[in-house]
This record gives sequence, C-alpha cells and structure tokens, in this order.
Amino acid sequence: MDLTVDADRLRDDIEATAAFGDIDAGEGRGRTVLVGTEANRRAREYLVDRMESAGLDVTVDAVGNVAGAWTPDGADPDAAPVTVGSHLDSVPEGGIFDGPLGVYAALEAVRAMRDAGVTPDRPVTVVSFTEEEGQRFADGLLGSSVAAGERSVEEALALTDDDGVTLEEALEDIGFRGEGRLDATGWDAFYELHIEQDTALEEAGVPVGVVTTITGITHLDVEIVGEANHAGATHMHDRTDALAAAAELVLDVESAANEVVDASSDSAVGTVGSLDVSPNATNVVPGRVEAGVDIRDVEYDSMETVVGAVRDALARIETERGVDTDFERPFDLRPTPMAERLREAAHRAGDAAGIGTMDLHSGAAHDTMHVADVTDASLLFAPSREGISHNPREWTDWDDCAAATRVLAGAIASTAGVAER
Amino acid sequence: MDLTVDADRLRDDIEATAAFGDIDAGEGRGRTVLVGTEANRRAREYLVDRMESAGLDVTVDAVGNVAGAWTPDGADPDAAPVTVGSHLDSVPEGGIFDGPLGVYAALEAVRAMRDAGVTPDRPVTVVSFTEEEGQRFADGLLGSSVAAGERSVEEALALTDDDGVTLEEALEDIGFRGEGRLDATGWDAFYELHIEQDTALEEAGVPVGVVTTITGITHLDVEIVGEANHAGATHMHDRTDALAAAAELVLDVESAANEVVDASSDSAVGTVGSLDVSPNATNVVPGRVEAGVDIRDVEYDSMETVVGAVRDALARIETERGVDTDFERPFDLRPTPMAERLREAAHRAGDAAGIGTMDLHSGAAHDTMHVADVTDASLLFAPSREGISHNPREWTDWDDCAAATRVLAGAIASTAGVAER
Repeated sequence: MDLTVDADRLRDDIEATAAFGDIDAGEGRGRTVLVGTEANRRAREYLVDRMESAGLDVTVDAVGNVAGAWTPDGADPDAAPVTVGSHLDSVPEGGIFDGPLGVYAALEAVRAMRDAGVTPDRPVTVVSFTEEEGQRFADGLLGSSVAAGERSVEEALALTDDDGVTLEEALEDIGFRGEGRLDATGWDAFYELHIEQDTALEEAGVPVGVVTTITGITHLDVEIVGEANHAGATHMHDRTDALAAAAELVLDVESAANEVVDASSDSAVGTVGSLDVSPNATNVVPGRVEAGVDIRDVEYDSMETVVGAVRDALARIETERGVDTDFERPFDLRPTPMAERLREAAHRAGDAAGIGTMDLHSGAAHDTMHVADVTDASLLFAPSREGISHNPREWTDWDDCAAATRVLAGAIASTAGVAER
Repeated sequence: MDLTVDADRLRDDIEATAAFGDIDAGEGRGRTVLVGTEANRRAREYLVDRMESAGLDVTVDAVGNVAGAWTPDGADPDAAPVTVGSHLDSVPEGGIFDGPLGVYAALEAVRAMRDAGVTPDRPVTVVSFTEEEGQRFADGLLGSSVAAGERSVEEALALTDDDGVTLEEALEDIGFRGEGRLDATGWDAFYELHIEQDTALEEAGVPVGVVTTITGITHLDVEIVGEANHAGATHMHDRTDALAAAAELVLDVESAANEVVDASSDSAVGTVGSLDVSPNATNVVPGRVEAGVDIRDVEYDSMETVVGAVRDALARIETERGVDTDFERPFDLRPTPMAERLREAAHRAGDAAGIGTMDLHSGAAHDTMHVADVTDASLLFAPSREGISHNPREWTDWDDCAAATRVLAGAIASTAGVAER
C-alpha cells in the first residue's frame, strides 16, 4: 500500500508545535515543553484543533492522553482500531522532532488515507501520550503506562513534581484532566514513528528504520555519603570525599558498559547522566552525592552485568573510602520485541513506495514499549542528523520526515484493512 | 603576662550570637548568617551593644567593618593600636564558633585588661570584618581585603549577589553602611583567635595553637564541554561524555595532592568541591560540567604542582575523550607567614598562664591573611572537636574557648605594652 502524503502540511504542523516553549538556542532549534506548562497547553490545544479539522473525534482521558478517532463510512466502528501516535512533551532544551514528528505523521497518515478516498475496515486512532520524557512527574512513558494498565489512573494522578504539585492539578491547570482511560488492550495494533536519535540510518543512507527490539532500561538512583568538611583544613588522609568516590563510580559504569560492548553486545550502554553534590561549594569537601545511572540493552542479561558492576563498585568504594552507599532501582523495563506482522507491513509499505527500509534496534525507550505488552506494536524510525537528540541541534530533514510518514501511512492502511491496489 | 578571663561572660556572648540565624540541625548547633540578612543585622547590633557596654568607642566603616576602640587613661591615643578580631558571618548551615569565638574572645580580652586594671601603652581595637566566608558577594575575606587596601571601598560596595543586589544596598538595608575605611596599615599588630577546623590540637591534647603560616589558596573554575545526547540511543563509542571526563579530573586532583603529601609537603590539599552537570538528567549523556577546584599549601611551589596536574589532566582528557576544556583562576593567594614577635608573645602568654601552646599551620584562609600583608599579624587556634567545621557539628569545648582567650589576652597585653608582672 502506498499513499501520497502532504509534506508541507506535515512540516507546518511540526513547525507550529516547535513554537510552543521555544528557546533561544545558539545553534539549532530547541524547545522546553514539560507537562502541565503553558507551552504544553498550547501544544495540546493546537493538536486538538488539527485533529478536529481533519474530522477526528477527539477525547482526553483522565491522565491527559489525547486521542482522535477516525471512523470513516465503511469502517466497522466496533472493530478494534489501529492506533498510531507518540508524544508532544520534551526534555528541557530538547529538539523539535522528538515526539511531535510521530504525532503529526500519524495525523498526516490519516489525512492521506482520507484524501486518497481509501476506506479501512477498522477505525484508525491518533494518540498523543502524556509525559513520555519523564521530566516532571515520573520516570517516563507515563501516559502509555496508564493506557497499558501498568499504572492506575489514581496512582498517576497522585504523582507529584519537585514542588509537590500533583499531575492531576497540573492537568486541571491546563484544562487537560479528562475522563476515563485510554485502553491499549482494545487496540488491534499500534504504530509509532520516532526519530532514531542514533546514526544507523544516516550511516547506511536509508530513510526508514523498522525496529526489531526496544532495549530494556534500568535506572539506578545511587546515594554516596561521606563527610562534608573544610577543604583547606582537612588533611588529605582525614577525608571521606563523596565526590571522589562518585567519580570512581562514573568511570566504573563507563568501563562496565564498554566491556559488555566489546565482549558480547554492541548495543549495551551505561551512563551516569546526573550527579548532585552537597554542599557543592569549592571550599568544602563534598559530603554527599546522588547519581542517576541509566543502563540499557537488547539483552536483559547484559544489562544485569552492568548493574552488577555498579553493585561491585559501590562495595569497593565503601571498603576503600569509608563512604556509605545505597541504591534504588526505580525503573526496570526488560527488552521489548516488536510484532513481526507489523514490521513486515512496514517493510512492504517501503517497497511499495520505493523507499528503503532497514531493521535496527531502539536504544531509546518509547511509549511503544508499554503498548507492546498488551497488543501488537511496531516502532519506525526516521534518520537523526549525527544522531543528536535531546538537544536543540536535533534534526531530521523534512524530506526524510515525509518519506517515513509515507511508509507509516502505507503500513497503517494495510494493517487497518485497506485492500492493496 | 597572664590575665583572668570571665569564661561565662565569653560563653554568654557566643551563645547569644548563636541564636541569630539558628537552624534546626539534627545533630549539633547550626546557624546561617549571610551578610546583609536579618540574622546578620541582629548579630552586628548585639556586638555594638556589647562593645559599648565595655566602654569601647564604636565605629562602622563604609563596607560594614565594625571596630571598637579601647583607649584607657594612660594609653597614648595617637599610638598605633593593637587590633584583634574575626568575623560574625557564617556559611549556610555552619557552626556557632567559626568567627564569633574570635570576635568575643577579643572583646573579652579587653574586658579582662580593664577588669585587671592594667594599662597598655597603645590602644586596643576589637574588630569584626564583613563577609569573611564569601557566601554572598565575594570569594571571601571581603572586609579585611578593604582594610588592607587590596580592594577599594567602591569596588567592594559595587559587588553583587546572585540576585543583583549590591553590597552597598545590603549594608544599607541592615543599617551598617558606615563611613570611611578601617585601615590596617595603621595598626601596630593584629591578632585573630579562630577555631582550628582540623585535628592537630585535639590529637596532641594541646588547647592553643600558634599558627606559623597560613596556606596559600588557589581556586580554579574548570569547564568541560562534551556533547549532550540520548543516553539510550548513543552508542558507547559515539559519546563525548563531559561527566566521565570530569570524573577523571576529580580523581587526578586527589591523586596529585596525595602525591605532594607523600613526596614533600604534608599540608598540601586538593579538592574538587563543586560539580555542576548539564543537563543533569539520568537519561541524557552529560554535555557540560563546571568544576570548582580548591588547592592549598604552606609552599606555593607545591600548590603549583597540583595546578600543573590539573592542566595536564585537562590536556589529556581533551586528547583522549574529545572534550573541550578551559579553566580560570579567580582566586590565588600565596602562603602567608605570621609575625615572629607576635607568635613568641603568644607562646609566652601560654607559659605564663600554664596553658599549653604548639606551632601548627592553618589550612583555612582567614582575615589575618590580608592584614599580614600590611602589618605584623598572628593567628591563634582553639581545638575543633574531630576537626569538623562549616557544619552544625562544629564544636569547641567552653573550657578550651576560655583557655585560648586567656592566652590571647596575655599576648595582646604584652604586645600593647602592659609591663610584665
């Protein structure tokens, strides 16, 4: 199945969305869109308007997930829909494609089917999930975790930000605390198009990636407690420096991930992404450090190898440096394989359109991870220039956006039961 | 010379001062007294009241330095005074002795001379310097830098805090923007009593330390720039991780200081006290780190060795990791020897009172550093329990406070020309 998409209409929507929460980036084009902010309200209201203009029936669920259902004459309104979407929120100072491309490619795919006059057997629903990036209330993938039934509506609404504001209050504040629960168990299939955030497509010169497996993700919150003391008056041998201990942890996480890459699994990654030092003054020996560790791979065993290295590193620095350490594992998702019938539909759509596709894995978590636990799911990628993401320099050529959307539209259409021509 | 001091009167003054800006510390007794705050106003007003009660002639200079001059009958009012003091401000959540002990020991020494009916040849002036700790407007030692002529009144008054408030406005706000400039060049001698903030006295079981040299201090502000990127989607070999690079710097600073300690100078210290990571999210490879490095020793050469190690470390991580690095040196004070005649006066006062004294160095900066550039200066220490300071657990036994004050009083009296009895 091949459908013509309107590249300008798609670009207009992404650029309009880029204006909400836009930042003054030295290079590139950035935005900061945290859930429940004015920028988020404007991005959501624009989406609702665009969905309604396209003839979709819009609903907002209790946790702010936005859905637009397209049930053209001829489709069975009671059939399980094919659902397609992504998210509108961003990391602080993030890029303009991460999320919005997937939401507006989904909407453009529906518009393309409508414009082509094709009628699927099943309804097609476009969704935008609440807080994929996990920057204010949760660790990420919030809206999809509720849609997949992995977290209850009540639990989600009670989540608080650093100032004690609940998700419920934040959604009410922007008028997006709806009713009911978007339920992914009732979907026939789910597609998400996202930017790759890596360089496999760019290096191969292929415009569309079809994900085989989304890597698992573990987050560890590590605490290292030493003793804060005067940096001038405390002899080197009398110190219990929490930052020096944390520095060893940072390098051990990096080494452990590199060892797994060399030994067995090229896709393994380990990162200390955040480090908070107390009291954090130049003239005081650091007394306490909190570190956020991120570990991912397509194999759960190799993730466990890196977690084990963290455990070993902490035991060693306790012994060698006299610090106290502790860690929690607030987030642990196993690797998620994608549905073969949807992957095949995507490759066929590429072939039909004369657009190259290739298999790859996803190192980034996506809402598709949660949805894949309850129904068939597929994740497609568009190329990211130099693999840069979560950064104003994140970029995907508009031609690539359109090509990937065209493959997405073809895959959706065949999955939803539009006869091949 | 030996004088009887009133231990209860001294303790009452320190405890009264501890109540201003007191915090609810889980363990110990803490206070937060930044310059220009309500707590600082109350601490200053209490001091002025106590000075006037003791018969001192109180003046406040343009940068808020408070001075109380005692010129008893028989003293030459035109003779260069012996000046004694310390500071009243604290670090955030600091202890109750760091600063106030030195101010009230100075005042108690004057009261002790007055009560003993002794008459010095020279006036004795008690001072409290503005912002020794450098927590709001400058890097530290602010008031004494003006008194020593190293910074102009105008330059000091124009310093701003993080909110753009000037020192001048902050002082006016609390009624301590006075007139003129306290001028240390006109002093015959300067004494400061301070807590040790280290364990040399405690370990030796000696109640009073006589400082031979105050270590020099260098601060380096280091910037390491890598590339922020998605922690899941960026392969290990495609990263330029600014935090992993900074971790190497932290460990290299520690190693370099340890090597100097082992090789030549036991007093050398090197600390990375602050580290600020951007964007500091668990799921983002760190793109930028700012590190604050503190380097001190009694020998400038060994400080330069550690600075050289920082330079080497940055060059190496630039080559090996592809990061960009830069550093500035906003603060660089050479080691400061104390005046021998004043050190001898302190040892003699200890002998006369039957109180043990010992030579040691100071790893902490004190206002005495600046004063020593323009006149003879001496720094005495009282023991700090476990060496803990800049912390509510900072503690000096009241008996030790009194013993050190007695030695201080004897040293002042003989320096100011009271005949030995």
